[in-house]
Amino acid sequence: MDEELLPENSGKQPVQPRTDQEKEQVLNRLKRIEGQVRGIQKMIEEDRYCVDVLVQISAINAALKKVGFSLMERHTNHCVADAIHKGNGEEAIDELMKVMQQFSKS
Amino acid sequence: MDEELLPENSGKQPVQPRTDQEKEQVLNRLKRIEGQVRGIQKMIEEDRYCVDVLVQISAINAALKKVGFSLMERHTNHCVADAIHKGNGEEAIDELMKVMQQFSKS
Amino acid sequence: MDEELLPENSGKQPVQPRTDQEKEQVLNRLKRIEGQVRGIQKMIEEDRYCVDVLVQISAINAALKKVGFSLMERHTNHCVADAIHKGNGEEAIDELMKVMQQFSKS
Amino acid sequence: MDEELLPENSGKQPVQPRTDQEKEQVLNRLKRIEGQVRGIQKMIEEDRYCVDVLVQISAINAALKKVGFSLMERHTNHCVADAIHKGNGEEAIDELMKVMQQFSKS
Repeated sequence: MDEELLPENSGKQPVQPRTDQEKEQVLNRLKRIEGQVRGIQKMIEEDRYCVDVLVQISAINAALKKVGFSLMERHTNHCVADAIHKGNGEEAIDELMKVMQQFSKS
Repeated sequence: MDEELLPENSGKQPVQPRTDQEKEQVLNRLKRIEGQVRGIQKMIEEDRYCVDVLVQISAINAALKKVGFSLMERHTNHCVADAIHKGNGEEAIDELMKVMQQFSKS
Repeated sequence: MDEELLPENSGKQPVQPRTDQEKEQVLNRLKRIEGQVRGIQKMIEEDRYCVDVLVQISAINAALKKVGFSLMERHTNHCVADAIHKGNGEEAIDELMKVMQQFSKS
Repeated sequence: MDEELLPENSGKQPVQPRTDQEKEQVLNRLKRIEGQVRGIQKMIEEDRYCVDVLVQISAINAALKKVGFSLMERHTNHCVADAIHKGNGEEAIDELMKVMQQFSKS
């Protein structure tokens, strides 16, 4: 497990496409996060107290991490599990560990 | 230094209002982050590979942390330093440590 | 994936015992970390500069995370992959996600 | 605030030496952490379940972070506040922000 960063676009596809319901759930969370980012823009414009802005940024980070972990769980249940079944789990697990490390440092 | 969370709205003000240039810099970064959040919504809609989405989420988290640290630096240079000069640094430093902890866990 | 903490002792066993070589590698890293922890005790006794101590603590944390990620990789390659092969991957993956979250917040 | 790492040994001193009581408190916590690191060595030797080891590593990381934050608080209350009083707060605050970033990523 080396430390080089993962590429922005791997060219890969999910083994099993997301259902409409899965997409909607993730999209709703991301729209809420987008709204929170606009909210802190407003706080900056209104010259709100720095610590209050930082509390909001922490909340957004936590929300993004939550989305990330739920994507990671789905990925492991589908893509990684599928690769393991097909006997080439090692590469998929190596990639999972890398993204996990990159993610947990961010 | 106890562990209770900071309130979302302290009712406090920055000791020295942000200059127009400071606001613009932070706002530009936040608008870029808002665009990145919309970008991952598009990735979900297009059913892009989970790991690619996670790489993007890590990038947004890192960008938000960067904004947060620059706000924290300004806050320390102005509000905290001002409180220290006025002899009531302890409360400001306690608040700074709390937000730092909350932030570093997010 | 709920947020309750994992127990300290699950009573479970690794699916495949660690080889002597694997044990030695991990133990060597942990002994080095133990030495680093003693090193910062000495720094405190000698009244060394706080920021220097903090730089050392960051180094220990990074070293512990590295050990953790290598254990997690082995765990996924053996225990999780084995559970997936046996058709009960879901529980193992749920546990993996929980420990990853707990770990990435620490 | 650039991103270069802080040196391992700055050659600086705490503005106000730690009291014996302060030293003892930090040392007790560090000795407990040293014991926890030995504890996970034993877990590896006994081939304990990976996830159980990871839960312990997370606990050590959290304990080290706690020590780190308490050192950072003391540092800000003494060294940084002192620098601010003497009119050269900027350098001390820059250093504080750097160590905080390094620390929060670890």
